[in-house]
Amino acid sequence: MTEPLKLAIAGLGTVGAGIVKIVQTHGDLLEARAGRPIAITAISARSRSKDRGVDLSGYAWEDDPVALARRDDVDVVIEVMGGEDGPAKACVETALGNGKHVVTANKALLAMHGQELAELAEANKAALRYEAAVAGGIPIVKALTEGLAANGIERVMGVMNGTCNYILTVMEDTGADYADVLKDAQELGYAEADPATDVGGFDAAHKLSLLAATAFGTRVDFAGVKIEGIERISLTDIEDAADMGYRIKLLGVARMNEDGLEQRMQPCLVPADSPLGQLEGVSNMVVVEGDFVGQTVYQGPGAGEGPTASAVMGDVMDIARGLVIPAFGAPAKSLVQAPRSTKGADAEYYLRFSLADQAGVLARVATILGEHGISINRMRQYGHADKMAPVLIVTHKVARTRLDGALAEIAGEDVSLAAPVAIRIETV
Amino acid sequence: MTEPLKLAIAGLGTVGAGIVKIVQTHGDLLEARAGRPIAITAISARSRSKDRGVDLSGYAWEDDPVALARRDDVDVVIEVMGGEDGPAKACVETALGNGKHVVTANKALLAMHGQELAELAEANKAALRYEAAVAGGIPIVKALTEGLAANGIERVMGVMNGTCNYILTVMEDTGADYADVLKDAQELGYAEADPATDVGGFDAAHKLSLLAATAFGTRVDFAGVKIEGIERISLTDIEDAADMGYRIKLLGVARMNEDGLEQRMQPCLVPADSPLGQLEGVSNMVVVEGDFVGQTVYQGPGAGEGPTASAVMGDVMDIARGLVIPAFGAPAKSLVQAPRSTKGADAEYYLRFSLADQAGVLARVATILGEHGISINRMRQYGHADKMAPVLIVTHKVARTRLDGALAEIAGEDVSLAAPVAIRIETV
Repeated sequence: MTEPLKLAIAGLGTVGAGIVKIVQTHGDLLEARAGRPIAITAISARSRSKDRGVDLSGYAWEDDPVALARRDDVDVVIEVMGGEDGPAKACVETALGNGKHVVTANKALLAMHGQELAELAEANKAALRYEAAVAGGIPIVKALTEGLAANGIERVMGVMNGTCNYILTVMEDTGADYADVLKDAQELGYAEADPATDVGGFDAAHKLSLLAATAFGTRVDFAGVKIEGIERISLTDIEDAADMGYRIKLLGVARMNEDGLEQRMQPCLVPADSPLGQLEGVSNMVVVEGDFVGQTVYQGPGAGEGPTASAVMGDVMDIARGLVIPAFGAPAKSLVQAPRSTKGADAEYYLRFSLADQAGVLARVATILGEHGISINRMRQYGHADKMAPVLIVTHKVARTRLDGALAEIAGEDVSLAAPVAIRIETV
Repeated sequence: MTEPLKLAIAGLGTVGAGIVKIVQTHGDLLEARAGRPIAITAISARSRSKDRGVDLSGYAWEDDPVALARRDDVDVVIEVMGGEDGPAKACVETALGNGKHVVTANKALLAMHGQELAELAEANKAALRYEAAVAGGIPIVKALTEGLAANGIERVMGVMNGTCNYILTVMEDTGADYADVLKDAQELGYAEADPATDVGGFDAAHKLSLLAATAFGTRVDFAGVKIEGIERISLTDIEDAADMGYRIKLLGVARMNEDGLEQRMQPCLVPADSPLGQLEGVSNMVVVEGDFVGQTVYQGPGAGEGPTASAVMGDVMDIARGLVIPAFGAPAKSLVQAPRSTKGADAEYYLRFSLADQAGVLARVATILGEHGISINRMRQYGHADKMAPVLIVTHKVARTRLDGALAEIAGEDVSLAAPVAIRIETV
């Protein structure tokens, strides 16, 4: 019999338990497909006594994930503890340093330390894989690094945070305000008690930074992602976007411009009849554009026990079959530190101003936009009961820097009662 | 320097020329990602003198693709000639027999001879890859064999023929009849002069049979695919489906039932707001449902020079990186000859009857359906100018065999002026 591939699991939360379930449910299937048995030999978690709904009695226990990563009876260390530093990092470093393959679902760890960990993996001829870290069950890292490996990638974009997409979808469907929907989502368990990582766009930005590195052969540059969350999106914005044939999505976009790498995670208007515009609920979607393949679209569950465990075990299956490729699709030493694009591509923008309800105010806004060379495609002013008049404007294509200048000037006017909202209209 | 991976290309039509363009355009990129250079060493095609818009002067020429497959300076033979037998088969067999890897875009060849070729490949430790044969540029074979390899697959389905989807989309958009749209599509080059392979569903059925083998660990069984084309779909069907919130797609569905493997390629009604229902034009879409991952969806260009060449070269990149896995995701000898499911899952059906315009006719149809235990969900009779009354019925869930019995009886009635049309409503 061929030697089994021996797994250690560090972290037995939802995902860890899901991995155990797959191995216990599909032992024969995995062996047939991988050409060798897949066996869990050791596990580690904070609490040994907690009931996780799976039988862990056949596995060696380690209190310390670093000790787990050192065990001789382990070929692959699966890190599903989370955290960008601390025990997760120590566990992964120890495993790679000992020549063991690592499969992780930890987007924060890779977003912060991807380059050094990729180098460490290659120096030790070990695989470092992270399909589960990006877009849950969708095999998008594989599509990008392998299936589309013969393409120059032109743009990668997507909806990569199910919580945000759920909130925006429910706001549109029910007409409820952001704060109310967030509260419901927290009660339903779709959003964390501290939602900032999700609704602030940071979780999705971690993922985008990993896809960008893979797509463009660059070093992971999470700090270079321009991040805006969905906290300031109002029902007015959503309804007005819908009226114009758009939907608002927290959209990550990575593209290589002439002056460097552009990485944005921000609310965008996308056409309602595009795949991204049609995405509902907690699903994720990634769109990849390559110079030969054109546009391909990948959709699926972005989180949860089964999908995440499926992605982790997909990576394990590759390792079992002998596939060891560089973490970001090209040798870590060859990844370049791309300059950050300051310009970005011009775009149309949706603008919302909260203006004092008095004569001449609209003309003032239009004049300032005109002085900055920004031309107006359409404009709409809503009826209003109080002293504040919401004014909605869609611009023609303009550079963001130019727009920001105009918005700053308008925000400084007495008649401006709240900071203007500007949402990019992304061509998809 | 690492040894280059040496390619031979058999067939220099659109796809062959696209492969040459990728290798010539992206030499550095491919080398960086694969860890070794990728070089074309030899080519073969019917006409040596034809201008293909690419410089072929650096490559050795063979008139005979079998001689090409025997060359010592070749590691991978790329077969993009087409044809389920003849030179393509001889070329692939020779290459595999000589221990050379094969990458092919030839769905017909694999649909007819997949099992024997997979066995031959494994006996010679060679890879046999065919990403380009299914759904063009979408890396769906990779997703199924690798990314989702830890799942028990529950259902694979999709729209895998761009010509058919284009025709159905244009019929709906313009209100033109099938015959007129087909004629236009032929003039535009979207459909062949002899369209039977496309509109008859055979091309898509080839692809489905390959996905089914991969998904369920079964031997390719193209003859087991129940095939219906789109030739009998009328504008009435499309418009009526739209009225009810559905769209008609030529949908391939593969599923393992208790009594065996179900493979169907037939027009189906799918919800208009589902990903499959929203698919427009020549795009392809495949939906994979796994027991852990849930539902994932893959969309992209299903044909064309760039997308197909991208898929071929994705396979080449895997080989360059050392990945050699069985063609259908598990060793060929382990693939089982599954019985063909005779039952299939129950479904709702959309029915169209062309009845003589006379008293009691509708009651007769309803009575026959009732006698067969088929209950009616909704019914509609259109106004009509001639002697023929179109009657549309949506049933509740029913077994296809039971439905066929009722339809045969109704077709035998004098008042039935044309064979009834029955279109399955697929739950997606």
